[in-house]
Amino acid sequence: MSASFVSANPPSRAQQIRSFLQKNNLQAWIAWRPDELLMLSGYFPYWGASLLIYFADADPILFVPQIEPRDHIPSGLLIQEYPWGDLKCADPYSALVAAVGNELVKAKVKGERVGMNLSASRSSLPIQAAELIPIPEAFSGQLSALAATPNPGCQAAFAQLYLRKTPEEIDAIRLANRVANVGLEAFLENLQPGIAEAEVAAAVESAIYRQLGHDGIFHSRGWAMVQSGPNSADAGRFNRSTGRRLQSGDLVLIELATCVNGYWSDLTRTAAVGSPKPAVEQLLAIIKDAQQAAIDGMHPGVTAGQIDALARNKIAAQGLSSFFTHHTGHHVGFRYHDPGFLILPGESALLEPGMVITIEPGVYVPERGGGARIEDNVLVTESGHEVLSRIEGNQQPGANAHDQH
Amino acid sequence: MSASFVSANPPSRAQQIRSFLQKNNLQAWIAWRPDELLMLSGYFPYWGASLLIYFADADPILFVPQIEPRDHIPSGLLIQEYPWGDLKCADPYSALVAAVGNELVKAKVKGERVGMNLSASRSSLPIQAAELIPIPEAFSGQLSALAATPNPGCQAAFAQLYLRKTPEEIDAIRLANRVANVGLEAFLENLQPGIAEAEVAAAVESAIYRQLGHDGIFHSRGWAMVQSGPNSADAGRFNRSTGRRLQSGDLVLIELATCVNGYWSDLTRTAAVGSPKPAVEQLLAIIKDAQQAAIDGMHPGVTAGQIDALARNKIAAQGLSSFFTHHTGHHVGFRYHDPGFLILPGESALLEPGMVITIEPGVYVPERGGGARIEDNVLVTESGHEVLSRIEGNQQPGANAHDQH
Repeated sequence: MSASFVSANPPSRAQQIRSFLQKNNLQAWIAWRPDELLMLSGYFPYWGASLLIYFADADPILFVPQIEPRDHIPSGLLIQEYPWGDLKCADPYSALVAAVGNELVKAKVKGERVGMNLSASRSSLPIQAAELIPIPEAFSGQLSALAATPNPGCQAAFAQLYLRKTPEEIDAIRLANRVANVGLEAFLENLQPGIAEAEVAAAVESAIYRQLGHDGIFHSRGWAMVQSGPNSADAGRFNRSTGRRLQSGDLVLIELATCVNGYWSDLTRTAAVGSPKPAVEQLLAIIKDAQQAAIDGMHPGVTAGQIDALARNKIAAQGLSSFFTHHTGHHVGFRYHDPGFLILPGESALLEPGMVITIEPGVYVPERGGGARIEDNVLVTESGHEVLSRIEGNQQPGANAHDQH
Repeated sequence: MSASFVSANPPSRAQQIRSFLQKNNLQAWIAWRPDELLMLSGYFPYWGASLLIYFADADPILFVPQIEPRDHIPSGLLIQEYPWGDLKCADPYSALVAAVGNELVKAKVKGERVGMNLSASRSSLPIQAAELIPIPEAFSGQLSALAATPNPGCQAAFAQLYLRKTPEEIDAIRLANRVANVGLEAFLENLQPGIAEAEVAAAVESAIYRQLGHDGIFHSRGWAMVQSGPNSADAGRFNRSTGRRLQSGDLVLIELATCVNGYWSDLTRTAAVGSPKPAVEQLLAIIKDAQQAAIDGMHPGVTAGQIDALARNKIAAQGLSSFFTHHTGHHVGFRYHDPGFLILPGESALLEPGMVITIEPGVYVPERGGGARIEDNVLVTESGHEVLSRIEGNQQPGANAHDQH
């Protein structure tokens, strides 16, 4: 990360991409992962079998499977269908590679500096998220054979494109957070002794799925993981729900990933059920204080390491350093975890306007009743910051739930 | 697929793996994808960052991230932790590759015939399923550099290991189908005019998640996609829920993927809401008839193409051939879609005891009211077949839901 430059207004997405291609002397970039397509074009694939050529000197071309939902194909791009999903086509990927090659020839850039992420590894899920479609082992090699191999540094430069969100992208992430908050309301409503962690999590995910169809939402999916009592002490290492039933006095932590129309929110809340002990109340207060300190310090020009220290020092002052075992945050929006620098001790990368970053200090202390973490998604603005995940009229993070029994 | 051999009792998993290693002259196999680990060892990873060395002449070794849930690590395997998830370790994958190399040296097989799937492409999801953890581009190359490159045919032979399930694996797939049926009950209970597709799907997924904690279930997740009325006509191309509200007379199709403890069920039901027109009733009857014909024909020694023809001919006899646009089935169990031959016209692969195969004919005819598909998961037994997905006392596929208004 070499973000020594801090400008007032984030450049538009098209400006950022043009600048990236020019600086790296690239004639085109080829992308096919869901998060890459979303970031480059705003299109979030259904099958995850689409591919985009983004030319430096011509309009982008999007290749889509012939069975992609037609109402889902964007109108502002040149579209080519290819025979993925055709019962009679044994090798649609070779057909795709041939079609891509043809377009590179037409644009006179075949064998030239055309960049791409070479690995077949994928992280983000498309709309059809129960499994990722298999990609033949030869595909990456066939694609990269169409171009001269650019400097590996191009891949790192491409990842920088994820960092500064445009106003339209920020609105989309805001919507994901608004939907996530509907899930968090269900979380608080369901906190009562006797209910199982998995039952609470199911109610949260259901509330999120039910938002589909409202406010232009065509995809709305949550992954809720609820850990209660002693299980909450594991939440710094992993998040999962079990069949454990909540008891009065428990700390209950929810980790909630939410994807709305392709854009992500990543939130955590910790609440107490019934009448918590003072030690439990204190853990919540410490985490709330540490998180707020880090958020209050966010503005353009501060380093990630400085933000980390604001949270970490608050926890250290309580003698709990060794229980805060993870980073303070990461970029979010195009993925559950965007690429880019982490909010970590000593990290020298600078915050810039348009960055959306999680702030999520946590401490996990079995002998004090479990673990507590609060996570919000914070936009760096020109003058400071805005917490995208705290919705007016909604619950405050770290609030105690009322015992409904 | 060269399954010319039909034996009475499926061999045990260990026997199958030993036989595979011997026939391919392999000293070990390295695996790390969730479905590979599950098939080889019964272990379903939480993070998806675990790796198994399965030696021909020594006990298997499982490498797990240091933050893998401890109660989730299997007791019957040699375990090594590596520093994935350690804030202070910048490159855990190199540490893993080094540890794997050490074990290959100890076993005197480093640089020898050690096989693996070389691509970084993944299909199946681990327990933490909101996104797949990023894998560095260099990882596959570093791993494969530890061994002499075996014949690429080894990868195809490895995929054959998915085909014949053992009795324990069949029980696990049976459990996934039992949980899926709880979801299908919620589907039928919620079919009423006025409810949105997404609301029906949310209720199904919620019912499935709530099974976690019962009957030894530590992971229970459904992906429900509901298409109603005209939307059901798209179900041969893709499955998704929208905000459309059900109307009396609609065909409603649910595609339901269910993962329980790592094992998968893949089901489809089509029902009618309220009082369907005769054309809609007829579509349901045609599909039910076609599916039952294919299921009735399943036994060891019959070819996949013969099974396909049993369903396809029934649909052709109704003049609807051109509306049945996809395969009749696929293997299922370790994934939503297991590798292996498809139930397709002309496919010469033979059915064998222990295979679990979906049977899912469908027709999509907008002018007759939409699309209809029924999908079940069928085990090939020594004497014939058993439908794993029809649970006693539960709804019959293709049954009409009662209008609850």
